[in-house]
Amino acid sequence: MSKPRGKTFERIVRESLALFNEHGERNVTTNHIAAHLGISPGNLYYHFRNKEEIVYQIFCQYRDCLTERLAMPVDRALTAADLGAFLDTAFDVMWRYRFLFHDQPGLLARNPQLQQDYLEFVNSTFRALLFGHFREFVRLGLLRIDDADIEPVMLNIWLVVKFWFAFEEAAHPHDRSGAAYSRRGVRQVLTLLKPYVQPDFQPVFNALLERTA
Amino acid sequence: MSKPRGKTFERIVRESLALFNEHGERNVTTNHIAAHLGISPGNLYYHFRNKEEIVYQIFCQYRDCLTERLAMPVDRALTAADLGAFLDTAFDVMWRYRFLFHDQPGLLARNPQLQQDYLEFVNSTFRALLFGHFREFVRLGLLRIDDADIEPVMLNIWLVVKFWFAFEEAAHPHDRSGAAYSRRGVRQVLTLLKPYVQPDFQPVFNALLERTA
Repeated sequence: MSKPRGKTFERIVRESLALFNEHGERNVTTNHIAAHLGISPGNLYYHFRNKEEIVYQIFCQYRDCLTERLAMPVDRALTAADLGAFLDTAFDVMWRYRFLFHDQPGLLARNPQLQQDYLEFVNSTFRALLFGHFREFVRLGLLRIDDADIEPVMLNIWLVVKFWFAFEEAAHPHDRSGAAYSRRGVRQVLTLLKPYVQPDFQPVFNALLERTA
Repeated sequence: MSKPRGKTFERIVRESLALFNEHGERNVTTNHIAAHLGISPGNLYYHFRNKEEIVYQIFCQYRDCLTERLAMPVDRALTAADLGAFLDTAFDVMWRYRFLFHDQPGLLARNPQLQQDYLEFVNSTFRALLFGHFREFVRLGLLRIDDADIEPVMLNIWLVVKFWFAFEEAAHPHDRSGAAYSRRGVRQVLTLLKPYVQPDFQPVFNALLERTA
């Protein structure tokens, strides 16, 4: 869909992401982006036909980043300590791409290719990734949960992670700290998992919980 | 802040709510609203100086509706069966006012009075209302939960309820059924509560869960 990628292409994507996160995607036009970068609108249009294509590129980065950074380790088994790293990474990625989740139904409705690829991603790759980790924690005896509850519990975890920053930005509009937001978000997810933690996992789990206090 | 309320005032509020839910608040102007109602923009401006005042009135209705319909019964104790009615009501009200939660950080940022009154409402009235019900279920022995977990569990429940329709509209964009969305939302909240359900509560709780299958 796009021309060969060079430094300008990458700069447009990177700075657009910063502007969308800061001002909201609806409030940022391609003219704003060009002016912010000190390039002509024509130069921007050489790389992207419209704003939707920029948003789509950002989504592709988000998708690849999440897939890569949350992948199951290939050279070793999961350990209890991986849960903390997994949650930190998830909130870190969600914070970096937070504008995508501020008005997602609206964003997807305006961008059919994004809608199609987003749904495909969450319903296949992302779902398999989350379930894979969760089932591995169950298999290792760290968590214990009825089979029928795995799906709705996973869904609740995903909901909390996905909407956490929108929730915090509404509740604490003057305290825009990604680190403080994330710490509280990790605590919310740990609270969701707490009833399923098995004795072997308890010491590491308690240490994770204390880190969020 | 507004002129005497009559039939036109009420119609503007009611029809604006329908338009905002259907098309998104950002895509609906006061001119759209006036045209939809078959009144002149001047007539609309007699009642509301701008769209933000209409949104604020809708928020007041939402706040009063939630406060009234989720109030603790004054003439009797809560029973196990009240949980089902409580959840049905919560999702029903959230569906009726769903546009308020599609891009809430953006909506609040554009409307300082709404931001102030929304925060005051959720941090006082609404918080007291949710905690009151939860603590009563604990006091009655229907739920059992460590004191320290009440707050984060309540917060997770509120997150799921608050963002449920935005989540469903992103995941199932072509299946816009409030009833089906709500049924799945109730199941998610019941899953959150399940680890804390005590034996006396189990039969009613299982019946509630089956209703959502």
